[in-house]
Amino acid sequence: MLEKTTRMNYLYDFYQSLLTPKQRSYMSLYYLDDYSLGEIAEEYEVSRQAVYDNIKRTEAMLEEYEEKLLLFQKFQKRQQFIKRLKELALKKYANDQELLETIEALEKLE
Amino acid sequence: MLEKTTRMNYLYDFYQSLLTPKQRSYMSLYYLDDYSLGEIAEEYEVSRQAVYDNIKRTEAMLEEYEEKLLLFQKFQKRQQFIKRLKELALKKYANDQELLETIEALEKLE
Repeated sequence: MLEKTTRMNYLYDFYQSLLTPKQRSYMSLYYLDDYSLGEIAEEYEVSRQAVYDNIKRTEAMLEEYEEKLLLFQKFQKRQQFIKRLKELALKKYANDQELLETIEALEKLE
Repeated sequence: MLEKTTRMNYLYDFYQSLLTPKQRSYMSLYYLDDYSLGEIAEEYEVSRQAVYDNIKRTEAMLEEYEEKLLLFQKFQKRQQFIKRLKELALKKYANDQELLETIEALEKLE
């Protein structure tokens, strides 16, 4: 996966369930599968401009959702604390499997 | 705070930023401040039925958002693991302030 922008990938990941099927298709091809606008246009038999407009509108929607719900921001903060916990546990209690596994389970929940 | 339903309180907490100001006002008076439908109707000079319909629609919207984004469900799972971590830490490493504080900071992030 070539990442056009990491932020947009995360926002898409958090909010894709709020998008329409067409928005999801375009975004997924563009951001996850690294299709060009032209390739998506060909695939869906629409103009390159139509694809571009749809993706730009969707990006703006994702930013609006993030402004309201802050899921990406909160995720990043939790990950910081989980990382710190993991470092502490590995440094001091490296033999405590139960502790380490619980921290890792928490990390993977996201 | 009298809790009419705990679930609706949580859903309101997670998704209130996606509601209109009027929806927020009614929900907040009804669920957080424990106003009756009649009291809200009087406050806003509308019929009791109008308040009821608005609140029922809002509740359905909140459930739809939860179906899509699962914020409450994911929150509950994280809290389970954080609780288990805290119990482990208190049982085995009760003197490790740094560890306990990091777990508590994570708990409070929510």
